[in-house]
Amino acid sequence: MEIKGITSRDIWKAKKRISSYITRTPLVYSPALSEATGANIYLKLENLQAIGAFKVRGAANKILSLTEEERSKGVSTFSTGNHGMAVAYIANRVGAKALVCMSNHVPENKVKAISRWKPEIKQNWDSQSAAGIYCYELEEKEGVKVIPPFDDKEIICGQGTMSLEIVEDLPEIDTAIVPLSGGGLISGVTLGLKLTVPDVKVIGVCMEKGAAMIESLKAGHPVDVEEEPTLADSLLGGIGLDNKYTFDIVRDYVDEKIQVSEEEISKGIAYVMENHKVIAEGASCVGIAYAMRKGVIKPGSNVVIVVTGNGIGMDIVKQVINDNF
Amino acid sequence: MEIKGITSRDIWKAKKRISSYITRTPLVYSPALSEATGANIYLKLENLQAIGAFKVRGAANKILSLTEEERSKGVSTFSTGNHGMAVAYIANRVGAKALVCMSNHVPENKVKAISRWKPEIKQNWDSQSAAGIYCYELEEKEGVKVIPPFDDKEIICGQGTMSLEIVEDLPEIDTAIVPLSGGGLISGVTLGLKLTVPDVKVIGVCMEKGAAMIESLKAGHPVDVEEEPTLADSLLGGIGLDNKYTFDIVRDYVDEKIQVSEEEISKGIAYVMENHKVIAEGASCVGIAYAMRKGVIKPGSNVVIVVTGNGIGMDIVKQVINDNF
Repeated sequence: MEIKGITSRDIWKAKKRISSYITRTPLVYSPALSEATGANIYLKLENLQAIGAFKVRGAANKILSLTEEERSKGVSTFSTGNHGMAVAYIANRVGAKALVCMSNHVPENKVKAISRWKPEIKQNWDSQSAAGIYCYELEEKEGVKVIPPFDDKEIICGQGTMSLEIVEDLPEIDTAIVPLSGGGLISGVTLGLKLTVPDVKVIGVCMEKGAAMIESLKAGHPVDVEEEPTLADSLLGGIGLDNKYTFDIVRDYVDEKIQVSEEEISKGIAYVMENHKVIAEGASCVGIAYAMRKGVIKPGSNVVIVVTGNGIGMDIVKQVINDNF
Repeated sequence: MEIKGITSRDIWKAKKRISSYITRTPLVYSPALSEATGANIYLKLENLQAIGAFKVRGAANKILSLTEEERSKGVSTFSTGNHGMAVAYIANRVGAKALVCMSNHVPENKVKAISRWKPEIKQNWDSQSAAGIYCYELEEKEGVKVIPPFDDKEIICGQGTMSLEIVEDLPEIDTAIVPLSGGGLISGVTLGLKLTVPDVKVIGVCMEKGAAMIESLKAGHPVDVEEEPTLADSLLGGIGLDNKYTFDIVRDYVDEKIQVSEEEISKGIAYVMENHKVIAEGASCVGIAYAMRKGVIKPGSNVVIVVTGNGIGMDIVKQVINDNF
């Protein structure tokens, strides 16, 4: 069976390719959430990847899929978040040059976080989209490949490797709850799971405002949305007006798409801190926020919630703690 | 080769025995500590075990090593901390009865934490040592086995399984830094490592005051010490005046024994929170506190620091955050 040209074998190949570059993350049982719901709930802790987020999986699979010649020219990205870090980190690990282009408005702490992985940084533009245009021109002119953040077969298969680990650890899985943004992660996980366990249910969760995938699904085609401040800031961003993979996969194979409020996200962050002693970013906690709603989890079912990353400042951590404890 | 009657094979047997009851924890790279020291530093995150601490390994190995007949009579413990939770949890998982005996002074939050795993709780005594005496009398009279916390071959081998995972993930290891208390953990890890990688260096770390193993080593034989308040409270407790295994193993095979101050422990807790977004208890952070000292880590070396557990109240978390950020 294949979906949008992707087979289970492609995800297995990705797993083999990236295995020495990523952390094989644990699936941990959540006593508190399990007691609260009557289900067996487990967290897939992708916040434990070296850069603090799952994005290394896709970046590693993409960069390692390039030919020797392509890789020798280096790679570029214009993401300043977890994907940008993932590209810089993996390029550094495999000995490829990485160029990260960003606008002059990117704050110093983000520049510093990416600098850790020793990419070349160019900060010459007024906006991130101008930085992006430069990256694509450079690809055209000099063959420096842009590593796309989500709408790409190799990226999707890379993120999908997580689902093979989930099935290995919990073949009894009934439901997966996964943060929803551009759709690279949830597409990979959905394909990886459904090609193996056809009747698994996948639920995508995001914030209430500025959710590009949700608005695109409502419109019936990819649309841009205005970004608004949210604790789940890593889920912001468009899905690409010329989306090739993730829009269709999310529409056709993700069983439910759910939105949670800022207050629910804040409570989700506090819940993971208190019960798992893990500090996860807001985008990571949307699944937990959803599972905390009364009556949404089927008692007795085996549920995996993906916790995606830990890119949260200590100022927000401090605020959540002082608000909740 | 064997040490105190323990071989590498015994630890491999423990690994096989307990594998479906424990979490195979990840060894995560620490970019921040690696940059600060010029070494390659990794954290073994045992705080991710279901009960939040490594103690499940030893408890599982001990309980699963009992005969069918012994197990049918149930097991007991008088620990109210991580070991008590581990015994209750594993007994619950394997379908054995567990009895936890405790003094009337044990605070309600500790009683509640252990209750989660459905043991029988008896709270009939004025002191923990009286509760302990009851457990041993019950073993004598009715065969209900007391699961010892550290000074036991099966417990040591169970904790030692962690070292097999460490070698699998980082065969290049040069140094292991391990919290030091009764010595069950560090004995298991030291044997597991040194029987495989003979020239590995093992460093045990504990708090400054009330460190029973350190005082016993100074005296040349096991001695009791007065307990004093510490952020590393899980490291408190005697090593047993009739110590059979851990005193000798720690004396003869642990290369360095180090003590860190309360201020260093607090900074260690804050450091793991900020850089790994993991909330670990004080006892877990003594190794990190030590590694943060200038000049103690050899540049270029491959170092594993064991992070043992997450039994820390949100009140202390709040205080550490407000003190440090």
